[in-house]
Amino acid sequence: MDYVLYYWPGIQGRGEYVRLALEEGGASYVDTALLSEEEGGGVAAMMRFLEGEDVARPPFAPPFLKAGRQIIGQTANILLFLGPRLGLAPRDAAGKLWTHQLQLTIADFIVDIHDTHHPLGGGLYYEEQKPEAKRRTQGFLAERMPKFLGYFERVIERNRARGPWMVGSRVTYADLSMAQVIAGLRYAFPNAARDALRTRPRLVELHDAVFARPRIRRYVESPRRLPFSNDDLFRRYPELGG
Amino acid sequence: MDYVLYYWPGIQGRGEYVRLALEEGGASYVDTALLSEEEGGGVAAMMRFLEGEDVARPPFAPPFLKAGRQIIGQTANILLFLGPRLGLAPRDAAGKLWTHQLQLTIADFIVDIHDTHHPLGGGLYYEEQKPEAKRRTQGFLAERMPKFLGYFERVIERNRARGPWMVGSRVTYADLSMAQVIAGLRYAFPNAARDALRTRPRLVELHDAVFARPRIRRYVESPRRLPFSNDDLFRRYPELGG
Repeated sequence: MDYVLYYWPGIQGRGEYVRLALEEGGASYVDTALLSEEEGGGVAAMMRFLEGEDVARPPFAPPFLKAGRQIIGQTANILLFLGPRLGLAPRDAAGKLWTHQLQLTIADFIVDIHDTHHPLGGGLYYEEQKPEAKRRTQGFLAERMPKFLGYFERVIERNRARGPWMVGSRVTYADLSMAQVIAGLRYAFPNAARDALRTRPRLVELHDAVFARPRIRRYVESPRRLPFSNDDLFRRYPELGG
Repeated sequence: MDYVLYYWPGIQGRGEYVRLALEEGGASYVDTALLSEEEGGGVAAMMRFLEGEDVARPPFAPPFLKAGRQIIGQTANILLFLGPRLGLAPRDAAGKLWTHQLQLTIADFIVDIHDTHHPLGGGLYYEEQKPEAKRRTQGFLAERMPKFLGYFERVIERNRARGPWMVGSRVTYADLSMAQVIAGLRYAFPNAARDALRTRPRLVELHDAVFARPRIRRYVESPRRLPFSNDDLFRRYPELGG
């Protein structure tokens, strides 16, 4: 199966969680964000599905994935679909559901991270909501980040299988996403992330194990992997703290 | 199968999306939020799973559902699990995934609705973030609410099957959730919701069809259904507008 990924060009964003799964799974896929509009990529390719009147099941927003004739939206839903196909989810139904539950909790974490720089919403620039971003970041670093990190550390701890993963003894798409979140937190809040991770060694080990995997390493070293930046989900604004 | 639902007592909150599915599906279930702590319910029952050190796969937050020995967290994940069991999801894999995708988009909508009264986060009271809530609500009513409602209206319009539903010709859990969101918006933003729904007749029809279903009507008229309130997800603060 050949997959086509649609997402905003120029950022990692939520597309990155799908890319990491496709790369680790060794999938054959086209990333339209890396193609120009002349090559059939870019924003235009995405808009055809978001705004086209002939799309029977339109996605609300990117990322979305084309798999044969199926168009699948919502990051966690795309991973739910890809997981078993790419060997990145457990085989049993309860394990599949638990992995998806973790992914949805990661999605909640990501919303909280995003809202540190956009508490008043995406309709305003960061510069228009700086004092509010500062207050929201304070609460995030003091309460939300430790709560989420403590939770995921506990999940790894309670996984009875050996190894650094959250579910069973093999890497899942939720582990890939978790590692990406940790990398992002270190970019956005270097000091706070360092302090918070000092007492969460399992998460550090998971992060390192993901980024040491040959396919992930090859991807991260390739020009396909975009750097973190302040146009993206994780942003480094020293004035917010962290 | 007997189900046990765990959620905060005294509010509809995110538990309500699960309740509507259990009720419409005619499931036999215990709602621990309606039991006192002496009866084995209330917050204590919930905390046993959230904080108990012997829970192998702990949920991050309520609601969560006990089904046999399985504990399932994340509202959309619970509905993904219940859908096929209660006859509230299509039978084919693509239809299941599409219904779940809609549910996840409803979940995003709900986060946006919640953040109108808590833009700086849940760690502060509403009274501590009133001016910010007002700015966030403006953007919500002007851009986000119309975008979401327009999207779901289009989804119903493009569903080739007859009837008022979003997927196929039978009601799904996503329809139940959508109807609840419309009821909530009418409570929280009566004027803005009326104006916005004037041009979205299919959503009004869906809402009415859900709340006219005999089991849903029986539930809504029972003491099990809690009223909307300002301690809940949907809040009526006239000072915010709408």
